[in-house]
Amino acid sequence: MKRKPGIGIVGAGRIGRVHAETIAFRLPEAELRAIADVNRQSAAEVAARCGIPRVAADAGEIFASPDIDAVLICSSTDTHASLVTRAAGAGKHIFCEKPVDHSLARIDHALDAVRKAGVKLQVGFNRRFDANFARVRQAVASGEIGTPHMIHIISRDPAPPPVSYVKVSGGIFLDMTIHDFDMARFLIGSEVEEVYTAAGVMVDPAIGEAGDLDTAIVVLRFQNGVIGTIDNSRQAVYGYDQRVEVFGSAGSIATANNYPNQAVISTARQVRRDLPLHFFMDRYTESFANELRAFVEAIVEDKPTPVNGTDGRAPVVMGLAARKSHDERRPVKLAEIG
Amino acid sequence: MKRKPGIGIVGAGRIGRVHAETIAFRLPEAELRAIADVNRQSAAEVAARCGIPRVAADAGEIFASPDIDAVLICSSTDTHASLVTRAAGAGKHIFCEKPVDHSLARIDHALDAVRKAGVKLQVGFNRRFDANFARVRQAVASGEIGTPHMIHIISRDPAPPPVSYVKVSGGIFLDMTIHDFDMARFLIGSEVEEVYTAAGVMVDPAIGEAGDLDTAIVVLRFQNGVIGTIDNSRQAVYGYDQRVEVFGSAGSIATANNYPNQAVISTARQVRRDLPLHFFMDRYTESFANELRAFVEAIVEDKPTPVNGTDGRAPVVMGLAARKSHDERRPVKLAEIG
Amino acid sequence: MKRKPGIGIVGAGRIGRVHAETIAFRLPEAELRAIADVNRQSAAEVAARCGIPRVAADAGEIFASPDIDAVLICSSTDTHASLVTRAAGAGKHIFCEKPVDHSLARIDHALDAVRKAGVKLQVGFNRRFDANFARVRQAVASGEIGTPHMIHIISRDPAPPPVSYVKVSGGIFLDMTIHDFDMARFLIGSEVEEVYTAAGVMVDPAIGEAGDLDTAIVVLRFQNGVIGTIDNSRQAVYGYDQRVEVFGSAGSIATANNYPNQAVISTARQVRRDLPLHFFMDRYTESFANELRAFVEAIVEDKPTPVNGTDGRAPVVMGLAARKSHDERRPVKLAEIG
Amino acid sequence: MKRKPGIGIVGAGRIGRVHAETIAFRLPEAELRAIADVNRQSAAEVAARCGIPRVAADAGEIFASPDIDAVLICSSTDTHASLVTRAAGAGKHIFCEKPVDHSLARIDHALDAVRKAGVKLQVGFNRRFDANFARVRQAVASGEIGTPHMIHIISRDPAPPPVSYVKVSGGIFLDMTIHDFDMARFLIGSEVEEVYTAAGVMVDPAIGEAGDLDTAIVVLRFQNGVIGTIDNSRQAVYGYDQRVEVFGSAGSIATANNYPNQAVISTARQVRRDLPLHFFMDRYTESFANELRAFVEAIVEDKPTPVNGTDGRAPVVMGLAARKSHDERRPVKLAEIG
Repeated sequence: MKRKPGIGIVGAGRIGRVHAETIAFRLPEAELRAIADVNRQSAAEVAARCGIPRVAADAGEIFASPDIDAVLICSSTDTHASLVTRAAGAGKHIFCEKPVDHSLARIDHALDAVRKAGVKLQVGFNRRFDANFARVRQAVASGEIGTPHMIHIISRDPAPPPVSYVKVSGGIFLDMTIHDFDMARFLIGSEVEEVYTAAGVMVDPAIGEAGDLDTAIVVLRFQNGVIGTIDNSRQAVYGYDQRVEVFGSAGSIATANNYPNQAVISTARQVRRDLPLHFFMDRYTESFANELRAFVEAIVEDKPTPVNGTDGRAPVVMGLAARKSHDERRPVKLAEIG
Repeated sequence: MKRKPGIGIVGAGRIGRVHAETIAFRLPEAELRAIADVNRQSAAEVAARCGIPRVAADAGEIFASPDIDAVLICSSTDTHASLVTRAAGAGKHIFCEKPVDHSLARIDHALDAVRKAGVKLQVGFNRRFDANFARVRQAVASGEIGTPHMIHIISRDPAPPPVSYVKVSGGIFLDMTIHDFDMARFLIGSEVEEVYTAAGVMVDPAIGEAGDLDTAIVVLRFQNGVIGTIDNSRQAVYGYDQRVEVFGSAGSIATANNYPNQAVISTARQVRRDLPLHFFMDRYTESFANELRAFVEAIVEDKPTPVNGTDGRAPVVMGLAARKSHDERRPVKLAEIG
Repeated sequence: MKRKPGIGIVGAGRIGRVHAETIAFRLPEAELRAIADVNRQSAAEVAARCGIPRVAADAGEIFASPDIDAVLICSSTDTHASLVTRAAGAGKHIFCEKPVDHSLARIDHALDAVRKAGVKLQVGFNRRFDANFARVRQAVASGEIGTPHMIHIISRDPAPPPVSYVKVSGGIFLDMTIHDFDMARFLIGSEVEEVYTAAGVMVDPAIGEAGDLDTAIVVLRFQNGVIGTIDNSRQAVYGYDQRVEVFGSAGSIATANNYPNQAVISTARQVRRDLPLHFFMDRYTESFANELRAFVEAIVEDKPTPVNGTDGRAPVVMGLAARKSHDERRPVKLAEIG
Repeated sequence: MKRKPGIGIVGAGRIGRVHAETIAFRLPEAELRAIADVNRQSAAEVAARCGIPRVAADAGEIFASPDIDAVLICSSTDTHASLVTRAAGAGKHIFCEKPVDHSLARIDHALDAVRKAGVKLQVGFNRRFDANFARVRQAVASGEIGTPHMIHIISRDPAPPPVSYVKVSGGIFLDMTIHDFDMARFLIGSEVEEVYTAAGVMVDPAIGEAGDLDTAIVVLRFQNGVIGTIDNSRQAVYGYDQRVEVFGSAGSIATANNYPNQAVISTARQVRRDLPLHFFMDRYTESFANELRAFVEAIVEDKPTPVNGTDGRAPVVMGLAARKSHDERRPVKLAEIG
């Protein structure tokens, strides 16, 4: 692609705004051309802040614009699959927030449209682009810790979302663990073939009344023999807790949390430091920018995107299997799901 | 008890020697009176080093000695249950190394003898007396981290034992994980009701040929709702890796490994420190001394021992359940075992 | 100030470019209007990258522009004082890189011009705006560690500059330690009244042949009784080493270095992590942005700048005294310098 | 020496008791034969606890005993020099607590007696035998961090001694810093030739009224060109703070404090750990045992002691120079002292 790719954004909520700012202020290699949102006021505000020349009436107007080469789909999850399908039909490259959908049938339909259109698709698993997790992947891929044997992913939110959100979230496994399912596949570089879930409602009974869980351990068995766990909680009172450890034949690599500063205070009562970064936007600022940089680079240099449709689908299968395992209190093979 | 309790030791191997030295050099509150071992030469060497006045012909001679109030059973595992039974019959207080036995029937028979005799029994789960784990227990018991939700135990050996030992060890769950089963019960203060095992042979195929496993994740569900995992490997090349984390409603507590020094070296290639303590005798020096101190104190002050017969039996049930879970690839309730 | 302040930049070298990018991409509150450099090509390149509408012929053209409210002086040190004087004469607010000059007479002349013109002046001691050092200042100012007794500043570069630069640098105390002199005043909130220097040439004899030093310890005595040290080396092979500790009656606060990731790798040889951030641009990225944000804010809200002319002068006095102390091998009072 | 060396102890105070316990319970290679103290009751108590067969009437009785090969001088500092002289005259090997004396003349007299008698003398600078500092020495000696350039020693007590003790202590430099002067010489392996002191009274005015200081920074210039600092405070509210850093051409080595456990607690307010070990007996338990082990080994194997008379004298010279530097506010060469 000779000229700068023109970008359109569908969805001007929190994550849409983050991506708009990244492209406006940190990615001179691409150019924002239009934004749309069901709440036009939101779209207008983001446009003003980020210098986006056009507020489109709807996604359709964006897909129909010839000066737009790629779209970022940042709307609510239930709209992702159909917007991917339509964007693909319009020949646009697509960056779609996670998850693509809660239904495998709809995901498959959308991926099929992408394949037929020959456009690029990247799914928003931003954490792969975080410096800590990228370093772990590098250690595993380079053999720095030998052959991997076990993996542990800790992924705890500072506070649960509102119950109203929980009800439409698809459940903890599709809403929260999905990032960790992707992380597991990314770090180990092998597919998971079986999961087993031990979970409960420990943070807020209202989450249980909504049919969901708030605390979970998911055991993973990978095709290459690696075994592992994911630990999720909807509420770590000390902040956003995001760590991994991979243990192998030649050693281990483990990551700690990120902190707002490196100060240690010693007093008559304790040796302490400030809490780790609390908000995912602060914790993952750079990874959000990096994933868009990679997307734009894939377009400009016509290379595969680093997180493709398969990567979008697999964690949904894992999420469905994890829930089934919980419901049936037994290990569930992914092959049972689809 | 007015006078210093007289102690007899059965078994002059590695752990027998450690206990003998503790009593001789660090526990003036008790007095070593005799030691026996099937290898009389070993017993004589320990006696000379630790100033033990008598090398007994066998365990029976020790049990028959009126100047001996308590015995330490440090012989091979297959002899523990019958020695406990005989020592109880002789009215001696008993410190027995872990595990009491691999068979629940034999354990129950021995515990029954202890109960009838009204003697004290302490089982050698020394790690409860380690400063790190004791601090974690304190945090959980005091509510410092709120209501516990999840626990993770990492327990990796620096190198596997010889395969000849593996064959008679009772398997990884009764030989190695048994410490972690005890730790889980100790830290959470609730019984486990179900386990699920994901395990494999990753370190040495010879261990698999011997019918055992060398790498395992065991998921625990406690009666009080807590969920947790144990991570075991027979070989962590960087040394003895012994850590726990308990996560609760008001925070978490996590322990790091112990190191031979607190030095950090920064060079043109990396920032590094020396490996953690490699050998369990170095890592747990103090806990071995502390558990005997507690045993002697229980005798002198006529109080319950801190690790009793129930604590000796429960981890064996867990180990049998963990193996059954592996064999049948399903979660197993402890009630299925006995 | 109602409208966005218009900014002109004098000097398109490394630091000029950093400031241009900050304003272009991260400070929507201000607007770049022009840039000048003796190397017009450099200025043109920065202008193209950052969307600066005008490449001025020289500083004079910038000072004469009515649409420019404030100037950033990023040219070589020997030009700072006279450019400050001229900019003040033209009524522009001034952000001047450190040091203002190596001569107190020239600094005083420039500060006089600033005072007479009533414009704002901020000196580029960016490290005050770093999250670590700001946290230390907060602890001292809030009384979190009680009354301060001692301070230690470690400030080591990853590698020495070229000897050609060393020759015109003003010497280690005016070129490198000057940041630490400012840090000392900033953190303790009191003036230094005496310094004592122990220093040598340990990194590169060529630095000594150029009349300079490459390794130094400077002892500080503050007016409020605090005592402290600065540790400087031109070469820490492991990277940029920037730490402070303040010790007080109620405890201490100490900062560690910043690292590119939080991963720890354990192998059969060591427990290690990657080297700390090596390059000052990476280490202080945020502080460079924060200082300009503060400068723009001071203009927009018509408040004092956080690092003023006095703050620009004092570290130069300290640097001259530190050198005199080295030359005469005795403690030197700042009052001796001027 | 064929048989176990017989040991006599002069002084049954805190440190005398520690050494008695070490030999009784941890050093089977030597044998306690007698103990004396001006407070006979104290001596009797230690004898009872440690199984010492004889409570001598005074030091003279110990020096006159033919079954005693070596003596530990643990009495008050003002008696050290004359007891060393007398013990040497009696042909006993000598372990003497630090400092040998506050007067160089008396030290020289005692060392002369030792030399003439041909007995071994070890001075009680136990910290050399601490795992952290021994590791630093190893790094420096082996070239692991290249050629050393700078050293920093942090040495802060948890609380000041009673003012009554301060008055007879010889002052902070002979009482407290003396350990750090020894550490500096030990770690760098070169003599100090000049010191410069910046110090004050910040902890307790009563210490100042007693003519002493409680907070000090001492700058060291070594003969081999290394420069360094010692940081002393009589009161670190968070506990015993004992750290060093050596920086060299190929990197640095730095030690952290020792903690009672390795637990980290994260709550809604902070990430914290328990305070470092507070009491020097806990912090240096092993080093006290190690130094005696080395002393006994020197006797048994007839080798030089690792901390000899020169090592006992040099830190006193440094202490006197440090005080002179404070009094005269100028750097002082050790050659000025003697």
